Amino acid sequence: MDGTDTAHPGGARPAPARRDAEASKAEIVRATRYLLARHAQSDITLKAIADRAGVSPPLILKYFGNKDALLAHTMDFESDVDALLDAPLQDLGRHMVRSVLTSQAGNGTDPILRIAFAPLHGAQGEILRANFRAQVTERLATRLTGPDAGLRAELAVAALLGLGVVYGLARGPHVRAVDLEDVVTRYGPAVQGQLDTP
Amino acid sequence: MDGTDTAHPGGARPAPARRDAEASKAEIVRATRYLLARHAQSDITLKAIADRAGVSPPLILKYFGNKDALLAHTMDFESDVDALLDAPLQDLGRHMVRSVLTSQAGNGTDPILRIAFAPLHGAQGEILRANFRAQVTERLATRLTGPDAGLRAELAVAALLGLGVVYGLARGPHVRAVDLEDVVTRYGPAVQGQLDTP
Repeated sequence: MDGTDTAHPGGARPAPARRDAEASKAEIVRATRYLLARHAQSDITLKAIADRAGVSPPLILKYFGNKDALLAHTMDFESDVDALLDAPLQDLGRHMVRSVLTSQAGNGTDPILRIAFAPLHGAQGEILRANFRAQVTERLATRLTGPDAGLRAELAVAALLGLGVVYGLARGPHVRAVDLEDVVTRYGPAVQGQLDTP
Repeated sequence: MDGTDTAHPGGARPAPARRDAEASKAEIVRATRYLLARHAQSDITLKAIADRAGVSPPLILKYFGNKDALLAHTMDFESDVDALLDAPLQDLGRHMVRSVLTSQAGNGTDPILRIAFAPLHGAQGEILRANFRAQVTERLATRLTGPDAGLRAELAVAALLGLGVVYGLARGPHVRAVDLEDVVTRYGPAVQGQLDTP
């Protein structure tokens, strides 16, 4: 994952040549994801995003047009999931657990936890859920062999999401205190059990 | 779980004799939990709670004093967890998975998913997290034998929380379509694996 995707909002406008602009865009997207993982969308202000990203609100408007367009852009799971799924199937459970933990420990959120904040009603929630299905669970399902691949993918992803909730939202003291690889060893099989051909 | 706990806010005032009052209180708590499982606290208005519960906002104030007191009351996991943990240890994984699914299918949420909506900052988030640890994960840990009971309890609860996220928030089409006992059979071992003495 090289971050390129997150720096080009929908490919709608040509990327500025200056590296500063790319860095600012990436910061804005990162800040938006951080806030989306912690607050209802309606609570997130342009100013809050700007403050967290260390830029001005007008710069956000310049790059992304408006708040809704920025939010829609951050609702895409595609590039995050590239890295999440980047392992051979027989080690994918452990790899995904490690990815979630590394991301939680480093960034305070993980590649898929945003789905927990999808608004139940309204178009934006539907977009986020549709993206999640197409880009996360159904994409994982295409990797699996054997019957009920769609269900097994959902259950594997469920285990990952729960780990993110306990680590990042409930802030479980035990899971945060122990060595990351200890959790990978203990929890990886719970995920892998859904991935292996029954 | 007889619902008594949820009908007496903090025991602060004597319970009205009339059954209607108890029913209204229970409806108010149920509506508040429903909304808390779907929205940031700051987004939840007294009117929204009243509308959902089918009562008037003044009635809520009469029973619970103010919105914050009502929210604090609903932040208690104790009574919900009684039923969640009500099974012998060797079948607890399947029982808890079944509890989450039954509750999701029937109520649109489950006994523990509210923790996913804990605000990261501020006193109310801290209360919810502290309650969650004491009343859910640490309470489960006291049931376990062998080393690292606290960590294993957090990981078992993680798997349950993730199932609630996929079912209730991501609305996974596969997990919602299949027979509940099929999911219990597939996912129960992922939870039980953390509970069994290593």
